[in-house]
Amino acid sequence: MIMDEVYDVTIIGAGPAGLTAGLYCAQAGLRVVALEKETLGGQIMNIEKIENYPGFADGVSGPQLGQEMTMQAMNYGVEIKLAEVVGLELGAENKRVKTANGDYVSPAVIIAGGGEPLRLRVPGEEEFRENGVAYCGMCEGGQFKDMAVAVAGGGDSGVTEALYLANLASKVIIVEMMPELNAKSLLQNRVRQNQKVEIMCHSKVQAIVGDSQVRAIELLDTETNTVTTVALDGVLVHIGWVPQTKYLENVVPLDSEGHVMVKETMETELPGVFAAGDIRHGSLRQVASAIGDGTATALAAQRYLREGKS
Amino acid sequence: MIMDEVYDVTIIGAGPAGLTAGLYCAQAGLRVVALEKETLGGQIMNIEKIENYPGFADGVSGPQLGQEMTMQAMNYGVEIKLAEVVGLELGAENKRVKTANGDYVSPAVIIAGGGEPLRLRVPGEEEFRENGVAYCGMCEGGQFKDMAVAVAGGGDSGVTEALYLANLASKVIIVEMMPELNAKSLLQNRVRQNQKVEIMCHSKVQAIVGDSQVRAIELLDTETNTVTTVALDGVLVHIGWVPQTKYLENVVPLDSEGHVMVKETMETELPGVFAAGDIRHGSLRQVASAIGDGTATALAAQRYLREGKS
Repeated sequence: MIMDEVYDVTIIGAGPAGLTAGLYCAQAGLRVVALEKETLGGQIMNIEKIENYPGFADGVSGPQLGQEMTMQAMNYGVEIKLAEVVGLELGAENKRVKTANGDYVSPAVIIAGGGEPLRLRVPGEEEFRENGVAYCGMCEGGQFKDMAVAVAGGGDSGVTEALYLANLASKVIIVEMMPELNAKSLLQNRVRQNQKVEIMCHSKVQAIVGDSQVRAIELLDTETNTVTTVALDGVLVHIGWVPQTKYLENVVPLDSEGHVMVKETMETELPGVFAAGDIRHGSLRQVASAIGDGTATALAAQRYLREGKS
Repeated sequence: MIMDEVYDVTIIGAGPAGLTAGLYCAQAGLRVVALEKETLGGQIMNIEKIENYPGFADGVSGPQLGQEMTMQAMNYGVEIKLAEVVGLELGAENKRVKTANGDYVSPAVIIAGGGEPLRLRVPGEEEFRENGVAYCGMCEGGQFKDMAVAVAGGGDSGVTEALYLANLASKVIIVEMMPELNAKSLLQNRVRQNQKVEIMCHSKVQAIVGDSQVRAIELLDTETNTVTTVALDGVLVHIGWVPQTKYLENVVPLDSEGHVMVKETMETELPGVFAAGDIRHGSLRQVASAIGDGTATALAAQRYLREGKS
């Protein structure tokens, strides 16, 4: 028989949001565990250089930042366990976080499991992940200064990223599978007025090619069924984002895309259950915001444990 | 004649919130200036060691963190100017930030001027600032592990800090000038049940004494008019907090204590005017939250400049 592990706070996810929440709770003298299914440090472990997380004059490598955050949380008393969460059961007093390796029981739970960008799933995407293929303009766009770059995805977020990159890059090509962009008209107007931006609809990235670095994409025109090779230096993929909330369906209120709904305090509708970082509705998907979220949930959880409400 | 300086975004304050907002705006290719009246880096420059800002396994000194943040903002293009803001004029298109050294004109303004804790104004308070006198339990409380410490202030925030410290310190004495604590009853009950906490009402800290480090406080009993010396290792002052918003009265909606009112996006009621960090209503007054706020205002300001609304 596997015994339940009992804590004051169970945190799901050990990325920036979860590690920050853990750090604050541990420093407050609480017994806290963070459960991570895959990568300690979270998504930032895949980013070569992070230039917009404050505190590092020349930027910092994602793996280094993730490791510092992990070590810091551990140094101050957070227990970190590798375990994939498969369920969450909410009792009146205690919540039960279920994993394949046993259950974790605590009055407060902070959901900070993040999510991940949808991939194109084309040849070259994985190969050039750190050499021209990016998933976040604001986090990784610096590498495209004065270069030509494609943005895959013509929705609101893709077009917003394209406008962002147009301030840095020499040329931005928006590639959209549908016959037209589906961003809101105001954004479409802006992007059509921008001389640096070219729009290619009914087009699909078929492959990303290069040597040590992205050099071109192969584009399929779905109307003519012809393939052209477009020379460029990078591809920013912005076709969607999937929060890791499968096990939360019918347990915690989610939005239509699966993000956890939270109040301003980062508490869900369910007392003692909080959410932080990319997984929550309205997240800005930035390390710096995840840190702010993590802090907010930790203070709300402390208030909940102290006063019975947050 | 002094010419107006024209920018895309003017930021008031170069602490963590303002520097983060600036960093994000500059990386987005905007022309951005941050105006600081006093200390580049802000309040953290006064904190010897910060252990709850994620990214530093063993903590980081406040001055080092502040300097890294300042250098980072400058490296990526934020212009930083030493100038005290004395007024803000809101036009339909442009806002005018007035300083003694000229005006800064821009469509977007981010208010991140912070605030400061009320001081006791007693002998020893300044002298022992980094050797036992503290103003933030969560930021600076680590130094009081297994020690005896006084918390000056028996309101909600003082009592909350006392409960927080009781998890770390060996003893906590709450000193309140009034005949009774004025924290809410739930907090009063919690604190009365806590065996580590002693409550001394109708008492006033008259002096903080020590050698290289705080060793005692002199307490005046205002009912008996007698003075006793209480041996202890530290004093956490929590008698109030003053946001730096004098020049904003009748310009931007403030709460009863002078904090800037903001929506969830960190925008004020006035289009193009945003607030971040300790100065805003509802701030958690943590570096990590200020960073999150700064990010949010920068993205909201970018959206405002792009779409005419945030």
